[in-house]
Amino acid sequence: MRKESQRPTMKHIAQKTGLTVNTVSLALRNSPLVAPATRERVRKAARDIGYVHDALAGSLRSGSSHTVAIVLGDVANPLFAERFKYLERELREHNFRALILNTDEDLRLECEAIRTAISHRVDGVILCPCQKGRESIALLRKFGVPFVLLGREFEDDPMDAVVWDDEKGGLLAAQHLLQKNCVHMVFLNAALETSSAARRLKGYAQALTAAGQSVRVCEAQPMAGGVRDALEALFASGASVDALFAFNDLMGFEAASWLLARGLAIPQDVRLAGFDNVLSSISLPFGLTSISADKGEEARRTVEMLLRRMETPDAPIARAVLDVRLVERESSR
Amino acid sequence: MRKESQRPTMKHIAQKTGLTVNTVSLALRNSPLVAPATRERVRKAARDIGYVHDALAGSLRSGSSHTVAIVLGDVANPLFAERFKYLERELREHNFRALILNTDEDLRLECEAIRTAISHRVDGVILCPCQKGRESIALLRKFGVPFVLLGREFEDDPMDAVVWDDEKGGLLAAQHLLQKNCVHMVFLNAALETSSAARRLKGYAQALTAAGQSVRVCEAQPMAGGVRDALEALFASGASVDALFAFNDLMGFEAASWLLARGLAIPQDVRLAGFDNVLSSISLPFGLTSISADKGEEARRTVEMLLRRMETPDAPIARAVLDVRLVERESSR
Repeated sequence: MRKESQRPTMKHIAQKTGLTVNTVSLALRNSPLVAPATRERVRKAARDIGYVHDALAGSLRSGSSHTVAIVLGDVANPLFAERFKYLERELREHNFRALILNTDEDLRLECEAIRTAISHRVDGVILCPCQKGRESIALLRKFGVPFVLLGREFEDDPMDAVVWDDEKGGLLAAQHLLQKNCVHMVFLNAALETSSAARRLKGYAQALTAAGQSVRVCEAQPMAGGVRDALEALFASGASVDALFAFNDLMGFEAASWLLARGLAIPQDVRLAGFDNVLSSISLPFGLTSISADKGEEARRTVEMLLRRMETPDAPIARAVLDVRLVERESSR
Repeated sequence: MRKESQRPTMKHIAQKTGLTVNTVSLALRNSPLVAPATRERVRKAARDIGYVHDALAGSLRSGSSHTVAIVLGDVANPLFAERFKYLERELREHNFRALILNTDEDLRLECEAIRTAISHRVDGVILCPCQKGRESIALLRKFGVPFVLLGREFEDDPMDAVVWDDEKGGLLAAQHLLQKNCVHMVFLNAALETSSAARRLKGYAQALTAAGQSVRVCEAQPMAGGVRDALEALFASGASVDALFAFNDLMGFEAASWLLARGLAIPQDVRLAGFDNVLSSISLPFGLTSISADKGEEARRTVEMLLRRMETPDAPIARAVLDVRLVERESSR
């Protein structure tokens, strides 16, 4: 369907410069076998005729498409948008392109995304797994594709991973709400199959237990509507609630919308904290207390780890845990 | 770097089934030249050994990679995330993969994104251009890549495009604020080189002029910090302001943050309206009045237009204008 005849090729550069295609190819790869002046002449001719390197043909020769797939659960979550921006910038510096694939936190779509990545011969995959099964991991291993897990990992099966210190995050949030004298705290958590949810709960429970309080968890679907349903059930039961700690900021915002619509004041009636600190990248007229890590550092470590795995497939498993801190805002003052 | 030897190929299917590679290839493409029972046998063998189609090798033969690049200005804007989700779903139904490329509303990065798309032999491009120049359009035309503009277009150079009725949107927002008896209205707009900004202003100005009010525009950079700077300059000048109409919701939220931090009440002191209706997809504890179109319809029309262009490169230029409506929320009641 494309008019391939219009596409300038190395042959056109060769015709224009009077050199052989082989010399043009070497010059474009900056080979020392070609004199610097000739290399410059070839590059100029390439620019003049609008030559664009054919990554696909190149990748069939070299086995590399210089592309990394980023497989994320929900591109509508501002955290993922932020992650993508940092990762793309980092990859670009290493001359890799980023291809995003969205999974809607669905295992079937996650496997489809991995198949797409493999069929496009990506050099590597950065995956935030939905953790509803291991089929996607099995695919990556079967095809020997270098990959790094981002944000989540499998406790019983070590792989290269960059995660936040989720346990500390849960602990910090709970300690903060305890300091504000909250005595009816509820953790609005995601499903515990998600490693980050399990770890945040571990830290949260540790702080509450140390303070002699009981641990109350309310599980909600992280996708649209789940928080509303969970809160409706929680408040319909007549439970006392003076603080909510949400698994992520998106759920925290949804909880705030629901509480405010019900006539409850934040923080006077209910103190609220989230996780991810999406307010570091977008400005919203609602100061949500949150747990944050350095997202630039996260991207650097992730890409570094992936490049290492590409270069040394048999290197020992690597794991990076990023430190977290609490960012206090109006929702819990 | 990839262990290509592990990758199951058509040769492996041929060995397993005792057929020739040619028959396997025809069977996988569902050719009527192969008996239905044999086709089924080949597909079963392919599944059993974990065969994944090699899109790159396939695309070199067929010229198609079954991939469409979506080139967007700011993936951190929830509107773009929403657009991406709808477009990806629509493309998937037509058996195309979506590859996102981010431009940060920068012309150099936009051209780089188009080059990446071309070098990956995408079948088409969906582009929301930054409109700071035409180099990216020139590249698409030079390489004969089918493309559709999304949300923005060039007045003096018709191309396939799907846009919102921006003029009506500006008109509706202004009429709504006039109905609320606002007399010191300011349009917090993006740069007028953006076609949607120019058209929103046209409709806005029409409503204000009809009401005998003067048209006041304050231009702000849509990226982080631009709104704060613009509002600081506006309020430092001592201007009376009782209503703000923001170019998009992201700028509207940033304006709300700034106004609230300054001690101004919304809507009592300043009524506020945005554009894009991002609250249709994410729940935030701040009801921002906005202008909306049907985003599912937008994706359907865009993909339909792109497929038509792929199939009929010489078809006449198409243009779709989506109707808009005002969604009233607390920020302007």
